Amino acid sequence: MTYAHNFNPTISDETVFQAILDEKDDIGYYNLPFQDTTAFKEYAKTVQQNNIVVIGIGGSSLGTYAIYKFLKHSKNLQKKLFFLETTDPIDIQSKIQMIDLKDTLFIVISKSGTTVETVSIFKYINSLIKCDKNNTVVITENDSKLNTYAKMHGMTAFEIPKNVGGRFSVFSAVGLLPLAIVGIDIDELMRGTKRIYDGFFSANKTAIKERLLNKARFLVEYKNKFNINVIFSYSSRLEGFNKWYIQLWGESLGKIDVNGSRAGLTPVGIIGPIDQHSFLQLIIEGRRDKTVTVIKVENFENDLQIPDITLEGLEELDYLNNMEFSSLIKNQADATIESINNLKDIPCDVMTIDGVCETAISSLMYEYELLTSLCAKFMYIDAYNQPGVESGKIILKKKLQGK
Amino acid sequence: MTYAHNFNPTISDETVFQAILDEKDDIGYYNLPFQDTTAFKEYAKTVQQNNIVVIGIGGSSLGTYAIYKFLKHSKNLQKKLFFLETTDPIDIQSKIQMIDLKDTLFIVISKSGTTVETVSIFKYINSLIKCDKNNTVVITENDSKLNTYAKMHGMTAFEIPKNVGGRFSVFSAVGLLPLAIVGIDIDELMRGTKRIYDGFFSANKTAIKERLLNKARFLVEYKNKFNINVIFSYSSRLEGFNKWYIQLWGESLGKIDVNGSRAGLTPVGIIGPIDQHSFLQLIIEGRRDKTVTVIKVENFENDLQIPDITLEGLEELDYLNNMEFSSLIKNQADATIESINNLKDIPCDVMTIDGVCETAISSLMYEYELLTSLCAKFMYIDAYNQPGVESGKIILKKKLQGK
Repeated sequence: MTYAHNFNPTISDETVFQAILDEKDDIGYYNLPFQDTTAFKEYAKTVQQNNIVVIGIGGSSLGTYAIYKFLKHSKNLQKKLFFLETTDPIDIQSKIQMIDLKDTLFIVISKSGTTVETVSIFKYINSLIKCDKNNTVVITENDSKLNTYAKMHGMTAFEIPKNVGGRFSVFSAVGLLPLAIVGIDIDELMRGTKRIYDGFFSANKTAIKERLLNKARFLVEYKNKFNINVIFSYSSRLEGFNKWYIQLWGESLGKIDVNGSRAGLTPVGIIGPIDQHSFLQLIIEGRRDKTVTVIKVENFENDLQIPDITLEGLEELDYLNNMEFSSLIKNQADATIESINNLKDIPCDVMTIDGVCETAISSLMYEYELLTSLCAKFMYIDAYNQPGVESGKIILKKKLQGK
Repeated sequence: MTYAHNFNPTISDETVFQAILDEKDDIGYYNLPFQDTTAFKEYAKTVQQNNIVVIGIGGSSLGTYAIYKFLKHSKNLQKKLFFLETTDPIDIQSKIQMIDLKDTLFIVISKSGTTVETVSIFKYINSLIKCDKNNTVVITENDSKLNTYAKMHGMTAFEIPKNVGGRFSVFSAVGLLPLAIVGIDIDELMRGTKRIYDGFFSANKTAIKERLLNKARFLVEYKNKFNINVIFSYSSRLEGFNKWYIQLWGESLGKIDVNGSRAGLTPVGIIGPIDQHSFLQLIIEGRRDKTVTVIKVENFENDLQIPDITLEGLEELDYLNNMEFSSLIKNQADATIESINNLKDIPCDVMTIDGVCETAISSLMYEYELLTSLCAKFMYIDAYNQPGVESGKIILKKKLQGK
């Protein structure tokens, strides 16, 4: 007998791990934890302006926003960071009205260098204020046309390596430069990513490696039954992380696989204390088509306490008195977890991050990047391309050129 | 032969429409377009404070936020509206730091009157500033304990009718009072809802009635194939609307149906100009499990123009010069619609709203409320209860009481 086949058997953990090792030097984001960040920190020291405006869309802004949104109220930041990331004229105008443009550094970020939305916004800014080497810096690929423009004007330019995809670029200059400028400790960010890197790439069996492989395998093996992956974040500070996750997951894992089948896992990001009053209903009673990942924060700095007062008529709620809000929100998370686990047929995992600090958010994000790569390997798809987005860009360009 | 059965045949449009007529006087939100709004407008005139803080969660804040977020930059509003809607201590603290509490009116909103999160936050506010009839107003059910509290302190209280569910309450006092106070024209809001009401409840065949029935029938008939309903909003101003839609849809339609089957349609809300760079990939190449509704805005007031300048090195993008951002964003929407329609196997509809005005947002929201009721009828479920949320509340209460 001879035997031939065109189907792909379920892959073993070892094969997948080896596939990651095989691409590790070609896919740039894996090794970002070990880059030299001196240039970002040195540049940050020279910035005089108090407002920092990132002009960039999608992968050029979402990751930076996620980290900034998570940390900005807990760190004593001296500078403010803004994002011009949409073509909505009302949004652009309302943000610009808040900013003293003369006291602003513009960071123009486009991997390709010719992103229509980014260049449009940058052109508009040019009509309001002269953009030159004193107030503009560029982050792009080394051989892009935006880099040519920067060179012609003597502007500082930082590189996005070709092999670092936009949605995996938060720990390159794309995120680290603006974050360093506003006063986030980027060495601490790197420390968080290294912790996950070391655990995952260890030759030994580690908790990090095991949970990542197990989770990716589970999500892919059950992807046709559970085609929706809900992240239930128990802190409003994680709203930016949710948005970043939706981009990373949707754009990396919505693909046609090696067998020509449409694959995909649909990301949903919700905020615990708010959405447990609504979306939880759909989880509890709706179709069993969702996995749920609850993210809890262990330590909230700057906690607040419910005072020991009685509201006449509402005495029945006095059991809340003297409770800290951090305790209330953690109890809310635990109640949601218990509601879900009581049902026994909804896959649910819980990630508890240490606190509202650099290492907590960067390790969470780097872990999700690795999880994305792992899922793609298990699914026999390419996590790093985006043909569906590119085809839309071609149609848009034709429309804009009136063709 | 005799014949008995326990299954439910597909319902006709006429039967569903009749079922809506049958419940029209029992389910309060249907008739809100015709309520007397004088009391809200009169109260609004008396408010001296410049900051208005809504203390409320879920249905007590999301709809108001949706309308405020949509309109706030286009109207010349004199007062600012804030929302304390989460138990995240960092969120509470960062918002309070922005507000002069001495120049603030607090609107405490809780339908039941005993919402744990709302009362916790209100207690905390009481520890910062004396809350009395001069700076606090209450919106709740007439016989709630919060109403008792308000009466004991001589505070003004507005009613949430018992038969208006929280997530359907935006056009009751819950939304109209704070919106009237900050200067939104609530008569115009009502005019938008009436337009949809008149079209839908007309005895004749109207475009509004037909599109609502067709859409609800389609979504339900294909709910097992297309279990995810994506709203792709082409304006950042619709971010609040997206969140409100997610609550309305998830909590109303995630239910066990009359046959004991788990039903549910999963809402996803994304922002066009940003997410067409990411989530669109999942739509285009991923599994065919999604319907897509694109929302376009016809007229953006306060438009901006891309200036007629050339950036050296980026001459290839000069075709953007002199284009208005409103035109760019509409072209982006059209490119996305064309990308999707080219595939021929993704159900897609397009809603174009007139502009950034009261009638546009209120008619959109009222239409979605009707669509939700219709889907529930076609699905043989109760749109207006939420047993899955209630069970979570019971668990939370036990945890907080240490039981």
